[in-house]
This record gives sequence, C-alpha cells and structure tokens, in this order.
Amino acid sequence: MAAPVAVVQGASRGLGLEFCKQLLKWKTPAVVIATCRNPDGCLELQNLAARGGAPGRGTLSLIQLDVDREDEVRGAAERVAAQFGRVDLIINCSAMLHPSGRGETSLRDVSAQGVLATVTTNTVGPLLMAKYFTPLLQQGAGLFGSQPPESGRQHRGLIVNMTAKVGSIGDNALGGWYSYRLSKAALNMVTRTLAIELGRSTHNKVVCVSLHPGTVATDLSSPYLRNVPAHRLFSPEHSVSLLLDLIHTLNMEHTGQAFSWDGSPLPW
Amino acid sequence: MAAPVAVVQGASRGLGLEFCKQLLKWKTPAVVIATCRNPDGCLELQNLAARGGAPGRGTLSLIQLDVDREDEVRGAAERVAAQFGRVDLIINCSAMLHPSGRGETSLRDVSAQGVLATVTTNTVGPLLMAKYFTPLLQQGAGLFGSQPPESGRQHRGLIVNMTAKVGSIGDNALGGWYSYRLSKAALNMVTRTLAIELGRSTHNKVVCVSLHPGTVATDLSSPYLRNVPAHRLFSPEHSVSLLLDLIHTLNMEHTGQAFSWDGSPLPW
Repeated sequence: MAAPVAVVQGASRGLGLEFCKQLLKWKTPAVVIATCRNPDGCLELQNLAARGGAPGRGTLSLIQLDVDREDEVRGAAERVAAQFGRVDLIINCSAMLHPSGRGETSLRDVSAQGVLATVTTNTVGPLLMAKYFTPLLQQGAGLFGSQPPESGRQHRGLIVNMTAKVGSIGDNALGGWYSYRLSKAALNMVTRTLAIELGRSTHNKVVCVSLHPGTVATDLSSPYLRNVPAHRLFSPEHSVSLLLDLIHTLNMEHTGQAFSWDGSPLPW
Repeated sequence: MAAPVAVVQGASRGLGLEFCKQLLKWKTPAVVIATCRNPDGCLELQNLAARGGAPGRGTLSLIQLDVDREDEVRGAAERVAAQFGRVDLIINCSAMLHPSGRGETSLRDVSAQGVLATVTTNTVGPLLMAKYFTPLLQQGAGLFGSQPPESGRQHRGLIVNMTAKVGSIGDNALGGWYSYRLSKAALNMVTRTLAIELGRSTHNKVVCVSLHPGTVATDLSSPYLRNVPAHRLFSPEHSVSLLLDLIHTLNMEHTGQAFSWDGSPLPW
C-alpha cells in the first residue's frame, strides 16, 4: 500500500513542526513534505529529514517556500508534482499575529501595511496553496480522513486550514487584534468557498476544513499566555495529537466547516 | 438645533451617490461630506454641491479621498475636523468585486494581487476610516439612529459598513467570488471588533454595524443581474431609502451586528 503524502506548510516551528514529527510516526508513516521560508536555518527539520527511512518511520522532504510569494507556491507545487505525483493532505500552518509580533490592542495600532501583511500570510497563503496544489490533491489516494463506503461520497484529498477561536466573528467578545482576527475570519470564508468548489467533482473530491488547535504555547502565542490557566494551555504535542485524531475522522460530511480540537463546531 | 453631519465614503456612484442625495433631503437635512477618488470626474456630486443651501435642503462638501491610501484617509479626517469639528454618521460604500471587475468563478481566476487589492478597498478602507474618524465620531451629537432615554446607553456617532449577503460565511452555498467574499467576511469581523472597542467609552460611544443593501442594480452588480427576478432587484433609490429607515432605528443594542435592508439579522 502506498504511503500517505502530507504537505505541512509552515513547518519550521510550533504546530507545523509538531505535525511533521507526528506524521512521520503516524499509523501508516507518512511521506511528509515540509515547507518553510528558510530551510537552511531550520535544524530541526533538517534532522528529521536526515533520520527518514528507518523502519516504521516515514520520510521527510524539505522544500523552500515563502507562501507570501505566488511564484514560490507555484514552484513548490511543480516540484511536488514531479517528485511525488499526488498529495493526500495539506495542513496550512503559517500565520502571524501582526508583523510587529504583537496584536493591535486598539485602533491606534492599526496600519494598512500591518493588516495586508497579515492577510497575505494568513489568508492569501492558504488560498494560493489550494490554487496550485488542488490538481495534486485531486490525484490523492484518500489516505487521510475516514472514507464512507459509497464511492461517490469518498474524497481524494484533504485541506486543513489552521484557524483560531479569535477568528470567529460570533465568538468575538474582547475586541483587539484587528489584523489577526480579520485574516482568520477571511480564512474561514476561504475554507467554505474552497469546500464548495472542490466538492463538486464526481470522482476527485477534496475535503476542506478550518481547525482551531486550542490555546497552544507557541512563538506566536507566548506573549499572551500569562493569564491562561495551566489546564487550558496545550503543548504543541498534545494539540497536534488531538488534531490528527480529529483529521482521522473527517470526510465530505465535514467539508466547509470549522471545528475545535475536540471536534466541537466553531461558530463563524 | 445643529444639522446632522454625515460622511459618505465612496460617493461617486451607486449606493454612495444615492445616500448623498437622500441625506440632503433627510428629515433634518444633513451636512453631507461626500468622498471619492476623483472629484473632478464626478459631475453628479459637483451638481449636488452646487445646489446646496436651498430651503429644507442640506449642504454637500466634496472631498478627494482614495481609501486605499492611508495618508489620504488621515488627511481627509484632518480636513473634516478643521471644517466641521464632529461627525454623526459614516457610511463606508467603496467596494470592488475584483480589480478585473469580475468575481472569480473558480480557483483558476484567483491571484494574490487580486485578493489584496480587493481587501485593501473593501476591508482595510473602512478600518482606516474608523481609525482616523473615531475622534470626530466621539464628538458627534448623536443625530443618527435612535437614542434610548438612559444617557449611559446613548451613542454619539454611528459607523455603517456596507456588507453583502455573499460576505456571510454561513450563508455561502454557491462558492466563487473568493476575493469579494473573503473581503466582506473580514469586514464583518472589523465591524464586530470596532463595536467592542468603540462601545467601551462611558460618554462617547460609537455604534458600528454591517448592513446588506439587498440585490441592487449598480455598476458593481450589473454583470450578474440577468437571473435575478425583477421583484428581488432593488433600485439604488429603493435600497437606500430602506437602509436610511433602518439606520434611523439603530442604537447600542444593535452594535457589532449585521443586518439586511429589512432589519433581519444576517448570519456571520
């Protein structure tokens, strides 16, 4: 049986890096294609790549990709097409709170430049990934998610966009973080719109969902975690473990929706 | 009694132009500040400005403003501050479907450049308007909307962001139009986040809502109206008349929400 092929976009650290680690040890160890802006600077991914191929362990290929550059997304898809021929899963992890590293606490902090840089990475990046990798996902072997018995309802590929609870419009009760919030709300619309387009094909369906990882200790969140009670703060290991269990259950019934790490629906 | 002061951003045509016309004849005729990118090219607004000051009729001032340029938004706010000292209502009307004039029908049509240009006008523009005009709205006389008797729940100003039903994530059943849909979903998040920040002040509250004008025959929509039944297609006159009636009822109870022209809530 072929190995599942997974692309982890934004793999240099945080959730992306952890997805790579766990996918390499997945039930059926995966062929992991890890993308990051600067592979030379990412020793952890280099080590994972070097350790590939051991018994019961998948292989990792490292690809340079700045998702802010459409030509690089296209180039990465061409390389993956030539080398692997198909993709079963894409997880879009790259995200920034704001170019300054701090979410806006009030309108004073808002700038056009800051909003657009955040949207470019958090929203446009995953949309471009879908644009250029869809032909590969439509050639997928459907090795992620759960397949129903009826072939007409099965999927070939799966796109996971990492969203966040603060990207839920209806759930927003605190305000602030303009750029991050609006970029993730826009990403949820991308998920929904992709799900419709990619669900139309009779034989080459692709599932697309937004997933919220919980409150996770990563570089992005670390300045904001002081007031989070310990039992609500996940390690990347724990969050990704829960998310991979959830991904394992997904199929066309779930496409176009947003879920939290525990499978509960996230309001738009 | 002072005249109500309304800023109509994106006033050169369509709904914006019609808002200007009707506000000039409003119950208490308004001081209308109409903004557009190219006032020299906008004869209808020039005529409205020239006809100002007749009995029972408001006055119109025309201000050059390209909402894609943060320096111009700041400059416009400075001019309005110097000339009028306060604002009671801002209506953000500028919007594009896509720089090409056609919404994307599939992923093939998506480009980073197209998405970002659409977000710049449709999402960032209204956010920058809020950033620079908030001090003026907080000095407003509360002459738009309905004021409850308790002073602590009254508002001084009102921001209306023109959204669209196709910007509703939950309502999206057709797909396509990636740029426009995600820009309006992001705008709804802007509305929600602004409402929280601008509702905190004890004495200087500003209401912020998203409004959907119905399906209106404008330059933006005209290529897509062939299949719309006549009874569901509004003229700009009819839509704006309904929207101004709705605006007349708004107060802090409605802030942070999205409504259709008939006052029904629009899902996120």
